[in-house]
Amino acid sequence: MKSDDPITNLVSAFARLPGIGERTASRLAFYVLNEPDSLADDIAEALMAVKDQVNLCERCCNLTQAETCSICRAPDRDHSTICVVANAQDLRAIENTGEFDGAYHVLHGVISPLEGVGPDDIHMSELLERLQSADANGGTEVQEVIVATSPSVDGEATSLYLSKAIKPLDIRISRIASGVPIGSELEYTDKSTLSRALSERREL
Amino acid sequence: MKSDDPITNLVSAFARLPGIGERTASRLAFYVLNEPDSLADDIAEALMAVKDQVNLCERCCNLTQAETCSICRAPDRDHSTICVVANAQDLRAIENTGEFDGAYHVLHGVISPLEGVGPDDIHMSELLERLQSADANGGTEVQEVIVATSPSVDGEATSLYLSKAIKPLDIRISRIASGVPIGSELEYTDKSTLSRALSERREL
Repeated sequence: MKSDDPITNLVSAFARLPGIGERTASRLAFYVLNEPDSLADDIAEALMAVKDQVNLCERCCNLTQAETCSICRAPDRDHSTICVVANAQDLRAIENTGEFDGAYHVLHGVISPLEGVGPDDIHMSELLERLQSADANGGTEVQEVIVATSPSVDGEATSLYLSKAIKPLDIRISRIASGVPIGSELEYTDKSTLSRALSERREL
Repeated sequence: MKSDDPITNLVSAFARLPGIGERTASRLAFYVLNEPDSLADDIAEALMAVKDQVNLCERCCNLTQAETCSICRAPDRDHSTICVVANAQDLRAIENTGEFDGAYHVLHGVISPLEGVGPDDIHMSELLERLQSADANGGTEVQEVIVATSPSVDGEATSLYLSKAIKPLDIRISRIASGVPIGSELEYTDKSTLSRALSERREL
């Protein structure tokens, strides 16, 4: 598949990234060509470093450079509450709110009956182990699981699976709220979000 | 500036590319992380190859891996006609039309009085040499120069400079046509394009 022309190769390598078409890839390639060498080197180095040095936290499956991630190691966090997320990006999004000081579990995927992704295809067993034995959770017994998968079909399927698996364990399980996003106009909110917001209304 | 976290480094390296903000950069970084190793390696390799192997054609300043580019070396092209373009992307765009079988000259920039870019800051002298001596043009005397810079202020300034420099040399000089783009609606064409299309109307 590789061409003799290094520019063509760079264009097709860039075009394998999500949301980057042939045209953007070519714009990026020529930009890199016209920039001082350091940009190409910096990206190349960062790419290799990321694949060499990043692995999964052996407790929560978050991305880390050590055996356990900095969140699992943090002594001032509440390790009895686990927030379950689909991937490391979602973990970052929740961390950025500054509203959560518990631990995480990164599934690296969601259960998707349509695409044939079952619980064994994602990091589900590691989570269930942490719930069943305090040892697998660094010595702290888990009190609550917050399911923070997206309110999509697959996210809901994952949530359903978790609730069935966790209910018998006598651990509290909760789901992040769905509804009208802050700052958005009711008028332009889609039907399913609005009906969810209605059915999940809470008393004031 | 570099952080200890390889993911943060990759995100900031990607964010230095044009049109890629912090959010897209982070999406790309996590995509690369979740893909098989080969994507990261392929992009890294292609980046290094492009900077190591690509240099300027000594005749036309096009990007090439050899001393002269494949277009300058092609025996079946008309080397007496030189199409002057601002950069290698523009050359590719013209090549893709399949309408031009002459040679090129890549200026790697345009004259921009506002940004203080003069003829000495771009590869202009190499072009004038080719026009003055057949030797500098691989033995073929230049008969015509087509100025294919964009119809922007800077592109026009470059065109003006070229026409002044080339007129005394007894070489034909022409400029690509400007006007209403094919397939577009007159109604939505901007004023300056439309007035140019009117003033440069041609007899049928």
